[in-house]
Amino acid sequence: MNAGVRPEERVLKIDDVGDPRLAPYRDIRERDLVGRSGRFIAEGKVVLNVLLSSARFFEAESLLVLENRLSGLEQQLRLCPPEVPVYCVPQAVMDAVAGFHVHRGILAVGRRKAAPSLAGLLAGLPDRALVAVLCGISNHDNVGSIFRNAAAFEADCVLMDETCCDPLYRKAIRVSVGATLKVPYARQGSIDDIIAALAEEKFEIWALSPSGTRSIYDVPPAPRQALLMGTEGEGLPKLLLERLNTARIPMSAEFDSLNVATASGIALSRFSRFA
Amino acid sequence: MNAGVRPEERVLKIDDVGDPRLAPYRDIRERDLVGRSGRFIAEGKVVLNVLLSSARFFEAESLLVLENRLSGLEQQLRLCPPEVPVYCVPQAVMDAVAGFHVHRGILAVGRRKAAPSLAGLLAGLPDRALVAVLCGISNHDNVGSIFRNAAAFEADCVLMDETCCDPLYRKAIRVSVGATLKVPYARQGSIDDIIAALAEEKFEIWALSPSGTRSIYDVPPAPRQALLMGTEGEGLPKLLLERLNTARIPMSAEFDSLNVATASGIALSRFSRFA
Repeated sequence: MNAGVRPEERVLKIDDVGDPRLAPYRDIRERDLVGRSGRFIAEGKVVLNVLLSSARFFEAESLLVLENRLSGLEQQLRLCPPEVPVYCVPQAVMDAVAGFHVHRGILAVGRRKAAPSLAGLLAGLPDRALVAVLCGISNHDNVGSIFRNAAAFEADCVLMDETCCDPLYRKAIRVSVGATLKVPYARQGSIDDIIAALAEEKFEIWALSPSGTRSIYDVPPAPRQALLMGTEGEGLPKLLLERLNTARIPMSAEFDSLNVATASGIALSRFSRFA
Repeated sequence: MNAGVRPEERVLKIDDVGDPRLAPYRDIRERDLVGRSGRFIAEGKVVLNVLLSSARFFEAESLLVLENRLSGLEQQLRLCPPEVPVYCVPQAVMDAVAGFHVHRGILAVGRRKAAPSLAGLLAGLPDRALVAVLCGISNHDNVGSIFRNAAAFEADCVLMDETCCDPLYRKAIRVSVGATLKVPYARQGSIDDIIAALAEEKFEIWALSPSGTRSIYDVPPAPRQALLMGTEGEGLPKLLLERLNTARIPMSAEFDSLNVATASGIALSRFSRFA
C-alpha cells in the first residue's frame, strides 16, 4: 500500500455471513485448508508477522480482521502487500463464519508458493549446519513445538518423512508461533531416502533414542549435524537404530519419559551454535 | 488382596448409571475434584501405577474399570490395597457417568493424604539437591509437563507459589504422566517466602529469564541448586530478577521464544546429576 494511506482506508467491510469472499475462513475448526493448493490458516498477530516476512516460500491471500481490533493492527496492515484484500467484520460475523469464538482478532489465508525438494534444501545449506529430522511424527502439537524449538535454536531446516503430519495444519502453525512458516522444511520420501541424502551431504547423523549408546552431552561436535527423532510411543524403527549412531538424553531410569517436543528442545539446545 | 484371589473376584459390577458409588466420577470434564478434601481423578494404567506406588503422600479411594479391559489390568488390581473398592462398568455406563467417551479403560479417585509444608520439604532434602521453583504458572499443561521433566531429571522437589495452579488437576496429572503424584511438591506462600526459605537452606538460586546474564551452560555447579521459572508471557517479576542471579537458555535473537515447559526440560537436563 502507498505510504500515507491509512490502514482503515484499505479494508473491505463485510456484514453478510454468507459473503463468498469469506469462504476460505468457513468452519476452520472442522476442516483444514492444507492439501487444497497449499493453503492454510494463520491466526493472530505474531503468526501473521511471520507469514508476512516469509515471502520466499509463503504469501498471504487475504486477511480477516475484527473491526474493533483494526486500530491495533496498523503494523500488520502496512506489511501486507497492497494486492492482498483485507476483510473487516464484526465479531458476530467472524464467529459465525469460523464456527467458533475467534478471540485473536486477525486471521489470514496463506499459501505456500514453493515447496522445496529434499535435494534442493540440502544443496542450499552452509558448511556448518544443524538439521532436525522427523520420522513418523503425526501429532500436530508435537510438530508445532519442534518447529518452535528449531527456530529458537536456528536449525537450518527440518526434514520430515512423508508419514509426518503437515506442518501447515492450523494447530501446528499456531503451536509453533509461526515457526513452521519460518524454518525451511521438506516433507518428502521415506526416512531411508532422507538419511541417504544427508549422508551424501556429509552430515553426521545422530538418532535420538532412550536406549542411545552415547549421552548427547558426550557427542563430539561436527560441522554438519543431523538429529533424528521419532514418535514417543514407538520410537524410531529398530532396524534404523541398529545402523545409525544413537544418542540419549541422560535421565532417570525410574521415569524414563520425555515428550518428544521437549526432547527436541534439549537436543537442539545442546547442538546449537548458541550452547 | 490375598494372593490367589483372581482379579475378577474382587470387582463390584455396576450397571446403573445412577449408582451413588459412582458419584465421584460424575461429569469429570466439567468440574475438578481438586479442592474437595484433596481428591483428584487419575486416568489410565500408567498414571494409576504411579498413584498406587506413591503411598507416602497419596492413596486410591476407588477404581473404576471398563469390564472389557479387566483382563489387561491384573497388575494394577494386584497393587491396589484390598480395602479399595474396584467398580466395574460397561463402556456405556462409564461414558454416561464421566460425561465423555473414556477410552483409557481405567479411572481412579485418589486422595492426597499429606500436603508437605515448604519448610518440611526443604528440611528433608539431601546435601546435593536440585529444586524446580515455579512462579505464577497457571496453565495445567505447562505445570504437568514441568513435573514430567522434573521426574525425568530427578529434581528432588517442586516448589510452587500460591498463584500456580494445583498440580492435581486432572489434566495436569495426565500431561505429567503421573509425575505430579511422584515428585514431592509444596504449593504454599509467595515467591518471596520460597526464595527466603531456599536461601536459608543454602541453595544457589538461578532465575531463568530470556534476559539472564549467564548462559545456563556457564553456570558453575553447586551442591544445592534451585531453578526459578515464571510464565511465558510476563516472565518473572522485574524486581525479583534484579536481586537474583539470572540465567538464560542461549538462543536465536530473531525467534526468542520457548515454551516454559520446554525451557524447564532444557534447564533441568543441564543441571541434573545425569548431564
